[in-house]
Amino acid sequence: MTEQQKGPGDLPDAGGLTIGILGGTGDQGKGLARRFAMAGNRVVIGSRKADRAREAAEELGAGLPVSGAENPVAAGDADVVIVAVPWDGHRATLESLRAELAGKIVVDCVNPLGFEKGKGAYALPVEEGSAAQQAAAVLPDSRVVAAFHHVSAKLLLDPGVDAMELDVLVLGDDREATDLVQALAGRIPGMRGVYGGRLHNAHQVEAFTANLISINRRYKSHAGLRVTDV
Amino acid sequence: MTEQQKGPGDLPDAGGLTIGILGGTGDQGKGLARRFAMAGNRVVIGSRKADRAREAAEELGAGLPVSGAENPVAAGDADVVIVAVPWDGHRATLESLRAELAGKIVVDCVNPLGFEKGKGAYALPVEEGSAAQQAAAVLPDSRVVAAFHHVSAKLLLDPGVDAMELDVLVLGDDREATDLVQALAGRIPGMRGVYGGRLHNAHQVEAFTANLISINRRYKSHAGLRVTDV
Repeated sequence: MTEQQKGPGDLPDAGGLTIGILGGTGDQGKGLARRFAMAGNRVVIGSRKADRAREAAEELGAGLPVSGAENPVAAGDADVVIVAVPWDGHRATLESLRAELAGKIVVDCVNPLGFEKGKGAYALPVEEGSAAQQAAAVLPDSRVVAAFHHVSAKLLLDPGVDAMELDVLVLGDDREATDLVQALAGRIPGMRGVYGGRLHNAHQVEAFTANLISINRRYKSHAGLRVTDV
Repeated sequence: MTEQQKGPGDLPDAGGLTIGILGGTGDQGKGLARRFAMAGNRVVIGSRKADRAREAAEELGAGLPVSGAENPVAAGDADVVIVAVPWDGHRATLESLRAELAGKIVVDCVNPLGFEKGKGAYALPVEEGSAAQQAAAVLPDSRVVAAFHHVSAKLLLDPGVDAMELDVLVLGDDREATDLVQALAGRIPGMRGVYGGRLHNAHQVEAFTANLISINRRYKSHAGLRVTDV
Protein backbone atom coordinates (compact mmCIF):
# COMPACT_ATOMS: atom_id res chain seq x y z
CA MET A 1 0.00 0.00 0.00
CA THR A 2 1.19 3.53 -0.63
CA GLU A 3 1.61 6.09 2.10
CA GLN A 4 -1.61 7.82 0.96
CA GLN A 5 -3.74 4.72 1.40
CA LYS A 6 -2.56 4.03 4.94
CA GLY A 7 -4.09 5.55 8.04
CA PRO A 8 -7.47 5.41 9.73
CA GLY A 9 -9.12 6.53 6.50
CA ASP A 10 -12.41 8.38 6.12
CA LEU A 11 -13.90 9.27 9.46
CA PRO A 12 -17.00 11.33 10.27
CA ASP A 13 -16.84 14.96 11.38
CA ALA A 14 -16.78 15.16 15.17
CA GLY A 15 -16.57 18.96 15.29
CA GLY A 16 -20.15 19.59 16.30
CA LEU A 17 -20.28 17.11 19.15
CA THR A 18 -20.91 18.14 22.73
CA ILE A 19 -18.79 16.09 25.08
CA GLY A 20 -19.73 15.31 28.65
CA ILE A 21 -16.97 14.13 30.97
CA LEU A 22 -17.93 12.17 34.07
CA GLY A 23 -15.23 12.62 36.66
CA GLY A 24 -14.17 15.72 34.80
CA THR A 25 -12.66 17.29 37.89
CA GLY A 26 -9.86 14.69 38.01
CA ASP A 27 -6.66 15.32 36.08
CA GLN A 28 -7.44 12.94 33.21
CA GLY A 29 -10.97 14.25 32.71
CA LYS A 30 -9.98 17.88 33.08
CA GLY A 31 -7.09 17.39 30.69
CA LEU A 32 -9.33 15.86 28.03
CA ALA A 33 -11.90 18.63 28.63
CA ARG A 34 -9.20 21.22 28.02
CA ARG A 35 -7.98 19.68 24.77
CA PHE A 36 -11.42 19.07 23.30
CA ALA A 37 -12.51 22.60 24.20
CA MET A 38 -9.33 23.98 22.62
CA ALA A 39 -10.27 22.01 19.50
CA GLY A 40 -13.63 23.79 19.48
CA ASN A 41 -15.96 21.15 20.90
CA ARG A 42 -18.44 22.19 23.54
CA VAL A 43 -17.55 20.35 26.77
CA VAL A 44 -19.52 19.81 29.96
CA ILE A 45 -17.44 18.72 32.95
CA GLY A 46 -19.44 16.51 35.24
CA SER A 47 -18.96 15.92 38.95
CA ARG A 48 -21.02 14.72 41.87
CA LYS A 49 -21.14 18.35 43.03
CA ALA A 50 -22.08 21.05 40.57
CA ASP A 51 -19.92 23.71 42.21
CA ARG A 52 -16.78 21.54 41.95
CA ALA A 53 -17.55 20.96 38.28
CA ARG A 54 -18.00 24.69 37.67
CA GLU A 55 -14.73 25.44 39.48
CA ALA A 56 -12.90 22.94 37.29
CA ALA A 57 -14.40 24.53 34.16
CA GLU A 58 -13.35 27.99 35.34
CA GLU A 59 -9.82 26.79 36.08
CA LEU A 60 -9.44 25.83 32.43
CA GLY A 61 -9.76 29.50 31.59
CA ALA A 62 -12.22 31.89 30.09
CA GLY A 63 -12.75 31.77 26.37
CA LEU A 64 -12.95 27.98 26.18
CA PRO A 65 -16.39 26.41 25.58
CA VAL A 66 -16.38 24.46 28.86
CA SER A 67 -18.99 24.47 31.56
CA GLY A 68 -19.54 22.40 34.68
CA ALA A 69 -22.59 20.57 35.99
CA GLU A 70 -23.70 17.65 38.09
CA ASN A 71 -22.95 14.28 36.47
CA PRO A 72 -26.56 13.60 35.35
CA VAL A 73 -26.74 16.98 33.62
CA ALA A 74 -23.32 16.51 31.98
CA ALA A 75 -24.44 13.08 30.76
CA GLY A 76 -27.85 14.23 29.57
CA ASP A 77 -26.57 17.29 27.69
CA ALA A 78 -23.82 15.51 25.75
CA ASP A 79 -23.64 13.63 22.46
CA VAL A 80 -20.65 11.64 23.65
CA VAL A 81 -19.93 10.95 27.31
CA ILE A 82 -16.41 10.18 28.50
CA VAL A 83 -16.11 8.15 31.70
CA ALA A 84 -13.05 9.36 33.60
CA VAL A 85 -14.05 8.48 37.14
CA PRO A 86 -11.75 6.62 39.56
CA TRP A 87 -12.04 2.85 39.23
CA ASP A 88 -13.41 2.65 42.76
CA GLY A 89 -16.58 4.48 41.82
CA HIS A 90 -16.87 3.17 38.26
CA ARG A 91 -19.73 0.72 38.58
CA ALA A 92 -21.81 2.78 41.01
CA THR A 93 -21.50 5.97 38.96
CA LEU A 94 -22.56 4.26 35.76
CA GLU A 95 -25.45 2.43 37.43
CA SER A 96 -26.76 5.74 38.77
CA LEU A 97 -26.68 7.30 35.28
CA ARG A 98 -28.18 4.46 33.26
CA ALA A 99 -31.19 6.52 32.14
CA GLU A 100 -29.16 9.59 31.12
CA LEU A 101 -26.65 7.46 29.21
CA ALA A 102 -29.22 5.40 27.29
CA GLY A 103 -28.72 5.68 23.55
CA LYS A 104 -25.46 7.62 23.91
CA ILE A 105 -21.92 6.83 22.97
CA VAL A 106 -20.11 6.22 26.26
CA VAL A 107 -16.32 6.30 26.08
CA ASP A 108 -14.63 4.50 28.93
CA CYS A 109 -11.02 5.49 29.62
CA VAL A 110 -10.73 4.00 33.10
CA ASN A 111 -7.70 1.85 33.97
CA PRO A 112 -8.32 -0.58 36.85
CA LEU A 113 -4.86 -0.53 38.42
CA GLY A 114 -3.40 -1.27 41.79
CA PHE A 115 -0.11 -0.05 43.22
CA GLU A 116 2.17 -1.80 45.62
CA LYS A 117 5.49 -0.69 47.02
CA GLY A 118 8.30 -2.65 45.38
CA LYS A 119 5.95 -3.98 42.72
CA GLY A 120 4.70 -0.79 41.15
CA ALA A 121 1.50 -0.62 39.13
CA TYR A 122 -0.38 -3.73 38.08
CA ALA A 123 -3.74 -4.60 36.57
CA LEU A 124 -6.60 -5.39 38.92
CA PRO A 125 -8.87 -8.31 38.04
CA VAL A 126 -12.29 -7.18 36.80
CA GLU A 127 -15.22 -9.56 36.96
CA GLU A 128 -16.48 -8.55 33.50
CA GLY A 129 -12.97 -8.67 32.00
CA SER A 130 -12.28 -4.95 31.81
CA ALA A 131 -13.66 -1.59 32.88
CA ALA A 132 -15.09 -1.14 29.40
CA GLN A 133 -16.87 -4.49 29.51
CA GLN A 134 -18.21 -3.60 32.96
CA ALA A 135 -19.58 -0.38 31.47
CA ALA A 136 -21.21 -2.36 28.66
CA ALA A 137 -22.75 -4.76 31.17
CA VAL A 138 -24.07 -1.97 33.38
CA LEU A 139 -25.28 0.13 30.43
CA PRO A 140 -27.00 -2.27 28.02
CA ASP A 141 -28.74 0.62 26.23
CA SER A 142 -25.57 2.65 25.63
CA ARG A 143 -22.97 2.31 22.88
CA VAL A 144 -19.81 1.65 24.86
CA VAL A 145 -16.40 2.39 23.39
CA ALA A 146 -13.01 2.15 25.13
CA ALA A 147 -10.40 4.83 24.39
CA PHE A 148 -7.98 7.43 25.79
CA HIS A 149 -6.38 5.02 28.29
CA HIS A 150 -2.77 5.97 27.64
CA VAL A 151 -3.02 9.73 27.42
CA SER A 152 -0.86 11.50 29.97
CA ALA A 153 -2.98 13.81 32.15
CA LYS A 154 0.10 15.87 32.82
CA LEU A 155 0.71 16.55 29.14
CA LEU A 156 -2.99 17.24 28.50
CA LEU A 157 -2.91 19.96 31.15
CA ASP A 158 0.53 21.36 30.25
CA PRO A 159 0.16 24.72 28.46
CA GLY A 160 3.65 24.22 27.02
CA VAL A 161 2.59 21.10 25.12
CA ASP A 162 0.99 21.91 21.77
CA ALA A 163 0.64 18.41 20.38
CA MET A 164 -0.10 15.06 22.02
CA GLU A 165 2.25 12.68 20.26
CA LEU A 166 0.44 9.36 20.49
CA ASP A 167 -2.19 7.15 18.94
CA VAL A 168 -5.36 6.53 20.89
CA LEU A 169 -6.53 2.93 20.61
CA VAL A 170 -10.31 2.92 20.14
CA LEU A 171 -12.10 -0.35 20.92
CA GLY A 172 -15.69 -1.33 20.51
CA ASP A 173 -18.24 -3.53 18.81
CA ASP A 174 -20.19 -0.69 17.13
CA ARG A 175 -18.37 0.53 14.04
CA GLU A 176 -20.22 3.85 13.79
CA ALA A 177 -19.38 4.60 17.41
CA THR A 178 -15.70 3.67 17.15
CA ASP A 179 -15.38 5.72 13.95
CA LEU A 180 -16.81 8.76 15.70
CA VAL A 181 -14.50 8.37 18.70
CA GLN A 182 -11.53 7.94 16.37
CA ALA A 183 -12.55 11.19 14.71
CA LEU A 184 -12.84 12.83 18.11
CA ALA A 185 -9.32 11.75 19.07
CA GLY A 186 -8.09 13.15 15.78
CA ARG A 187 -9.31 16.64 16.72
CA ILE A 188 -6.50 16.99 19.26
CA PRO A 189 -3.28 18.01 17.52
CA GLY A 190 -0.77 15.18 17.26
CA MET A 191 -3.30 12.60 18.41
CA ARG A 192 -4.68 9.95 16.11
CA GLY A 193 -7.53 7.56 16.78
CA VAL A 194 -6.74 4.03 15.62
CA TYR A 195 -9.20 1.15 15.81
CA GLY A 196 -7.82 -1.27 18.39
CA GLY A 197 -10.18 -4.23 18.40
CA ARG A 198 -13.44 -5.37 19.93
CA LEU A 199 -14.47 -4.70 23.50
CA HIS A 200 -13.49 -8.20 24.64
CA ASN A 201 -9.89 -7.17 23.96
CA ALA A 202 -10.05 -4.01 26.09
CA HIS A 203 -8.49 -5.51 29.20
CA GLN A 204 -4.95 -5.56 27.89
CA VAL A 205 -5.20 -1.98 26.64
CA GLU A 206 -6.34 -0.80 30.07
CA ALA A 207 -3.72 -2.95 31.82
CA PHE A 208 -0.94 -1.69 29.56
CA THR A 209 -1.15 1.61 31.41
CA ALA A 210 0.77 -0.19 34.20
CA ASN A 211 3.57 -0.84 31.69
CA LEU A 212 3.58 2.80 30.62
CA ILE A 213 4.00 3.78 34.26
CA SER A 214 7.04 1.47 34.46
CA ILE A 215 8.40 2.90 31.22
CA ASN A 216 7.94 6.46 32.49
CA ARG A 217 9.78 5.61 35.68
CA ARG A 218 12.68 3.99 33.83
CA TYR A 219 13.09 6.65 31.15
CA LYS A 220 11.76 9.73 32.97
CA SER A 221 9.31 10.09 30.09
CA HIS A 222 5.62 10.60 29.38
CA ALA A 223 5.40 7.64 27.09
CA GLY A 224 2.60 6.86 24.69
CA LEU A 225 2.13 4.43 21.82
CA ARG A 226 2.17 4.84 18.07
CA VAL A 227 0.87 2.07 15.84
CA THR A 228 3.20 1.48 12.90
CA ASP A 229 2.10 0.62 9.36
CA VAL A 230 -1.34 2.23 9.89
CA MET B 1 15.26 16.23 28.12
CA THR B 2 17.02 16.76 24.85
CA GLU B 3 16.73 14.35 21.97
CA GLN B 4 20.23 13.05 22.75
CA GLN B 5 19.39 12.10 26.30
CA LYS B 6 16.27 10.15 25.36
CA GLY B 7 16.24 6.53 24.31
CA PRO B 8 17.13 3.26 25.91
CA GLY B 9 20.60 4.61 26.76
CA ASP B 10 23.78 2.63 27.25
CA LEU B 11 23.24 -1.04 26.58
CA PRO B 12 25.75 -3.89 26.53
CA ASP B 13 27.18 -5.34 23.33
CA ALA B 14 25.12 -8.33 22.19
CA GLY B 15 27.15 -8.98 19.06
CA GLY B 16 29.01 -12.01 20.35
CA LEU B 17 26.00 -13.87 21.69
CA THR B 18 24.94 -17.26 20.39
CA ILE B 19 21.18 -17.47 20.23
CA GLY B 20 19.22 -20.69 20.54
CA ILE B 21 15.64 -20.66 19.33
CA LEU B 22 13.27 -23.31 20.68
CA GLY B 23 10.51 -23.83 18.17
CA GLY B 24 12.78 -22.31 15.59
CA THR B 25 11.07 -24.16 12.73
CA GLY B 26 7.87 -22.11 13.17
CA ASP B 27 7.50 -18.82 11.31
CA GLN B 28 8.17 -16.59 14.31
CA GLY B 29 11.25 -18.52 15.41
CA LYS B 30 12.61 -18.91 11.91
CA GLY B 31 12.03 -15.22 11.22
CA LEU B 32 13.94 -14.17 14.34
CA ALA B 33 16.70 -16.67 13.47
CA ARG B 34 17.01 -15.09 10.04
CA ARG B 35 17.26 -11.52 11.33
CA PHE B 36 19.72 -12.29 14.12
CA ALA B 37 21.90 -14.28 11.76
CA MET B 38 21.78 -11.43 9.24
CA ALA B 39 22.94 -9.15 12.08
CA GLY B 40 25.94 -11.45 12.58
CA ASN B 41 24.91 -13.45 15.63
CA ARG B 42 25.44 -17.19 15.60
CA VAL B 43 22.02 -18.86 15.77
CA VAL B 44 21.01 -22.43 16.55
CA ILE B 45 17.48 -23.35 15.51
CA GLY B 46 16.00 -25.92 17.84
CA SER B 47 13.29 -28.45 17.12
CA ARG B 48 12.10 -31.75 18.54
CA LYS B 49 13.64 -33.39 15.50
CA ALA B 50 17.18 -32.50 14.50
CA ASP B 51 16.57 -33.02 10.78
CA ARG B 52 13.64 -30.57 10.76
CA ALA B 53 15.83 -28.02 12.53
CA ARG B 54 18.62 -28.50 10.01
CA GLU B 55 16.17 -28.15 7.13
CA ALA B 56 14.89 -24.87 8.57
CA ALA B 57 18.45 -23.60 8.92
CA GLU B 58 19.23 -24.55 5.33
CA GLU B 59 16.07 -22.82 4.08
CA LEU B 60 17.36 -19.55 5.48
CA GLY B 61 20.17 -19.75 2.99
CA ALA B 62 23.84 -20.46 2.87
CA GLY B 63 26.19 -17.84 4.18
CA LEU B 64 24.19 -17.09 7.29
CA PRO B 65 25.59 -18.35 10.62
CA VAL B 66 22.56 -20.56 11.37
CA SER B 67 22.54 -24.24 12.21
CA GLY B 68 19.86 -26.63 13.40
CA ALA B 69 19.79 -29.11 16.25
CA GLU B 70 17.51 -30.88 18.69
CA ASN B 71 16.04 -28.53 21.30
CA PRO B 72 18.33 -29.67 24.16
CA VAL B 73 21.40 -29.03 22.01
CA ALA B 74 20.11 -25.64 20.83
CA ALA B 75 19.43 -24.70 24.46
CA GLY B 76 22.72 -25.97 25.77
CA ASP B 77 24.87 -24.33 23.10
CA ALA B 78 23.34 -20.86 23.39
CA ASP B 79 24.01 -17.82 25.57
CA VAL B 80 20.45 -16.60 25.12
CA VAL B 81 17.54 -18.95 24.38
CA ILE B 82 14.38 -17.67 22.71
CA VAL B 83 11.20 -19.64 23.36
CA ALA B 84 9.06 -19.55 20.22
CA VAL B 85 7.11 -22.76 20.62
CA PRO B 86 3.32 -22.97 20.21
CA TRP B 87 1.45 -22.15 23.42
CA ASP B 88 0.13 -25.72 23.50
CA GLY B 89 3.56 -27.18 24.09
CA HIS B 90 4.97 -24.32 26.15
CA ARG B 91 4.99 -25.79 29.63
CA ALA B 92 6.02 -29.31 28.61
CA THR B 93 8.88 -28.11 26.41
CA LEU B 94 10.32 -25.89 29.13
CA GLU B 95 9.94 -28.57 31.80
CA SER B 96 11.86 -31.01 29.63
CA LEU B 97 14.73 -28.52 29.19
CA ARG B 98 15.08 -27.30 32.78
CA ALA B 99 18.65 -28.56 33.13
CA GLU B 100 19.86 -27.15 29.80
CA LEU B 101 18.26 -23.76 30.51
CA ALA B 102 19.60 -23.38 34.05
CA GLY B 103 21.61 -20.18 34.46
CA LYS B 104 20.68 -18.92 30.99
CA ILE B 105 18.73 -15.94 29.80
CA VAL B 106 15.47 -17.35 28.46
CA VAL B 107 13.43 -14.99 26.29
CA ASP B 108 9.78 -15.90 26.07
CA CYS B 109 7.89 -14.51 23.06
CA VAL B 110 4.87 -16.79 23.23
CA ASN B 111 1.37 -15.30 23.00
CA PRO B 112 -1.34 -17.47 24.58
CA LEU B 113 -4.19 -16.69 22.21
CA GLY B 114 -7.39 -18.35 21.15
CA PHE B 115 -9.39 -17.76 17.96
CA GLU B 116 -13.12 -17.97 17.48
CA LYS B 117 -15.15 -17.31 14.39
CA GLY B 118 -16.96 -14.00 14.73
CA LYS B 119 -14.90 -13.05 17.75
CA GLY B 120 -11.40 -13.14 16.32
CA ALA B 121 -8.32 -13.49 18.49
CA TYR B 122 -8.49 -13.20 22.25
CA ALA B 123 -6.19 -13.82 25.21
CA LEU B 124 -6.35 -17.20 26.89
CA PRO B 125 -6.26 -17.30 30.68
CA VAL B 126 -2.93 -18.56 32.05
CA GLU B 127 -2.72 -19.96 35.55
CA GLU B 128 0.56 -18.18 36.29
CA GLY B 129 -0.68 -14.91 34.76
CA SER B 130 1.21 -15.04 31.47
CA ALA B 131 3.38 -17.31 29.36
CA ALA B 132 6.45 -15.49 30.66
CA GLN B 133 5.43 -16.02 34.28
CA GLN B 134 4.77 -19.66 33.51
CA ALA B 135 8.30 -19.90 32.11
CA ALA B 136 9.67 -18.29 35.26
CA ALA B 137 7.71 -20.72 37.43
CA VAL B 138 8.86 -23.76 35.45
CA LEU B 139 12.48 -22.54 35.21
CA PRO B 140 13.42 -21.22 38.64
CA ASP B 141 17.12 -21.37 37.79
CA SER B 142 16.85 -19.41 34.53
CA ARG B 143 16.73 -15.66 33.97
CA VAL B 144 13.39 -15.24 32.22
CA VAL B 145 12.70 -12.20 30.06
CA ALA B 146 9.62 -11.52 27.90
CA ALA B 147 10.12 -9.89 24.49
CA PHE B 148 9.45 -10.04 20.72
CA HIS B 149 5.69 -10.63 21.12
CA HIS B 150 4.56 -8.16 18.48
CA VAL B 151 7.04 -8.83 15.73
CA SER B 152 5.40 -9.90 12.47
CA ALA B 153 6.73 -13.29 11.36
CA LYS B 154 5.80 -12.37 7.81
CA LEU B 155 7.94 -9.25 7.82
CA LEU B 156 10.83 -11.06 9.54
CA LEU B 157 10.88 -13.59 6.70
CA ASP B 158 10.25 -11.12 3.86
CA PRO B 159 13.45 -10.57 1.86
CA GLY B 160 11.97 -7.27 0.62
CA VAL B 161 11.82 -5.82 4.13
CA ASP B 162 15.14 -4.29 5.20
CA ALA B 163 14.05 -2.74 8.50
CA MET B 164 11.58 -3.86 11.15
CA GLU B 165 9.83 -0.65 12.13
CA LEU B 166 8.80 -1.29 15.70
CA ASP B 167 9.87 -1.20 19.32
CA VAL B 168 10.21 -4.48 21.13
CA LEU B 169 8.94 -4.28 24.69
CA VAL B 170 11.36 -6.14 26.97
CA LEU B 171 10.02 -7.20 30.37
CA GLY B 172 11.74 -8.82 33.28
CA ASP B 173 12.88 -8.56 36.86
CA ASP B 174 16.62 -8.93 36.14
CA ARG B 175 18.05 -5.66 34.89
CA GLU B 176 21.20 -7.16 33.41
CA ALA B 177 19.11 -9.66 31.45
CA THR B 178 16.59 -7.11 30.14
CA ASP B 179 19.44 -4.78 29.14
CA LEU B 180 21.06 -7.57 27.14
CA VAL B 181 17.79 -8.49 25.41
CA GLN B 182 17.15 -4.83 24.61
CA ALA B 183 20.60 -4.73 23.04
CA LEU B 184 19.80 -7.89 21.10
CA ALA B 185 16.59 -6.36 19.71
CA GLY B 186 18.58 -3.31 18.69
CA ARG B 187 20.81 -5.42 16.44
CA ILE B 188 17.96 -5.83 13.94
CA PRO B 189 17.71 -2.73 11.72
CA GLY B 190 14.74 -0.53 12.61
CA MET B 191 14.03 -2.45 15.78
CA ARG B 192 14.57 -0.95 19.20
CA GLY B 193 14.41 -2.71 22.56
CA VAL B 194 12.53 -0.69 25.15
CA TYR B 195 12.15 -1.75 28.77
CA GLY B 196 8.46 -2.52 29.27
CA GLY B 197 8.06 -3.37 32.94
CA ARG B 198 8.40 -6.29 35.32
CA LEU B 199 7.35 -9.84 34.53
CA HIS B 200 4.08 -9.51 36.44
CA ASN B 201 3.01 -7.04 33.75
CA ALA B 202 3.75 -9.38 30.83
CA HIS B 203 0.19 -10.64 30.38
CA GLN B 204 -1.12 -7.51 28.71
CA VAL B 205 1.84 -7.35 26.34
CA GLU B 206 1.23 -10.93 25.24
CA ALA B 207 -2.52 -10.36 25.04
CA PHE B 208 -2.09 -7.18 23.01
CA THR B 209 -1.09 -9.38 20.08
CA ALA B 210 -4.83 -10.09 19.74
CA ASN B 211 -5.40 -6.37 19.26
CA LEU B 212 -2.65 -6.19 16.65
CA ILE B 213 -4.39 -8.99 14.77
CA SER B 214 -7.60 -6.92 14.81
CA ILE B 215 -5.70 -3.83 13.70
CA ASN B 216 -4.06 -5.76 10.87
CA ARG B 217 -7.42 -7.03 9.68
CA ARG B 218 -9.00 -3.57 9.75
CA TYR B 219 -6.14 -1.69 8.09
CA LYS B 220 -4.60 -4.47 5.99
CA SER B 221 -1.34 -3.74 7.79
CA HIS B 222 1.47 -5.46 9.66
CA ALA B 223 1.16 -3.23 12.67
CA GLY B 224 3.66 -2.85 15.46
CA LEU B 225 4.15 -0.43 18.31
CA ARG B 226 6.50 2.47 18.86
CA VAL B 227 6.88 3.98 22.32
CA THR B 228 6.87 7.78 22.16
CA ASP B 229 9.01 10.07 24.32
CA VAL B 230 11.62 7.35 24.89
